[in-house]
Amino acid sequence: MGESIENRLKQLGIELPDASGPAAKYANYVITGNLLFVSGKGPSGNPKGKLGREFTTEEGYQYARLAAIEVLAVVKDALGSLDQVSRVVRAQGLVNADPEFEEHHKVLNGFSDLMNDVFGEKGLHARSVMGANSLRENLPIVIESVFEIKS
Amino acid sequence: MGESIENRLKQLGIELPDASGPAAKYANYVITGNLLFVSGKGPSGNPKGKLGREFTTEEGYQYARLAAIEVLAVVKDALGSLDQVSRVVRAQGLVNADPEFEEHHKVLNGFSDLMNDVFGEKGLHARSVMGANSLRENLPIVIESVFEIKS
Amino acid sequence: MGESIENRLKQLGIELPDASGPAAKYANYVITGNLLFVSGKGPSGNPKGKLGREFTTEEGYQYARLAAIEVLAVVKDALGSLDQVSRVVRAQGLVNADPEFEEHHKVLNGFSDLMNDVFGEKGLHARSVMGANSLRENLPIVIESVFEIKS
Repeated sequence: MGESIENRLKQLGIELPDASGPAAKYANYVITGNLLFVSGKGPSGNPKGKLGREFTTEEGYQYARLAAIEVLAVVKDALGSLDQVSRVVRAQGLVNADPEFEEHHKVLNGFSDLMNDVFGEKGLHARSVMGANSLRENLPIVIESVFEIKS
Repeated sequence: MGESIENRLKQLGIELPDASGPAAKYANYVITGNLLFVSGKGPSGNPKGKLGREFTTEEGYQYARLAAIEVLAVVKDALGSLDQVSRVVRAQGLVNADPEFEEHHKVLNGFSDLMNDVFGEKGLHARSVMGANSLRENLPIVIESVFEIKS
Repeated sequence: MGESIENRLKQLGIELPDASGPAAKYANYVITGNLLFVSGKGPSGNPKGKLGREFTTEEGYQYARLAAIEVLAVVKDALGSLDQVSRVVRAQGLVNADPEFEEHHKVLNGFSDLMNDVFGEKGLHARSVMGANSLRENLPIVIESVFEIKS
């Protein structure tokens, strides 16, 4: 059987918050078939600023990790338990970045590493990352994601 | 049974245009399984400019609503009738924005509100939004979307 | 039957490289159901620069074509043969662009044209394209994509 994802979260010292609500008439997530589409989520605490200007790559990594925790809170809210995830399918990192910033991939690793820590091999996902000119409320990063769920 | 989506459009005073064609060797939409992937669509009328520079948030909201109507025109062209939509799954708003713009979410609400007006609960979708540095033909917004269709 | 995709590649004078590996703890691709999600891929050769600044639209077109070849290398690695592709579903072009650039669509045509050359009608895909403020390692373009595979 193996340990549950919830136990692994505990070992990692991660406590999932309640899923933050959508700010308008949209959904935190939509399930179609066995795919779970999760809305773009930013880090908790309302940090404001751009990578390569207000924030370093290492700070961005930590914000991507915090955004990953917000994503997992939505997934748990959607499925009841993270054990219902059979695969992390895809993530897109929208990084609020200076025009000369070049380390977007290292920032998004904060998300990817956490998915691997939590889900192991099932956490390996396809991904892309880009520098956004600006983001809502000047968040440093927003991550959109798709999960596969057990049928 | 309830009223048809076409009737609801009429009540909202919305007349769908013919679907605007793709500008190159790509498709307006692709159907795979019961998912309909719609290409990025901008507002009609070829407006040009950036949010936070040429356009206000309220103007952006109206452009997002106009882009939503272009998206629905493609969906109708793809499915014959909007009644074949079982769920709006996902939308991504690409907002042509100034580096200091922070209200991308309020702009994309023009799309989300229209989907709710037209489809009700089925119109609730996962979404993300970002500030693009620039967009094709200097459009203020382009919206990419995915719909679930009745099987 | 028709000729195989591999033969068509040969006729086009395209030799697929080995798939370039992901740079961190993520996957080059994920298969879920009959959808293949491919991670964002840039052109080979590590070109650096922005459209509308260091690079012209025509150069960008060629880079999009080179990125398409990198994408196909991943698809072949994933499926064993490109003949297993039943449809190119969706592509998103992230173009590293100057704020005043307006020809993103013409750049992404380098990807779309190649997909049509290689797959014919099956190569027609839904797509969107945006100007990114900056990209990892200052690549001129990164393309994320989804393919449908034969069941």
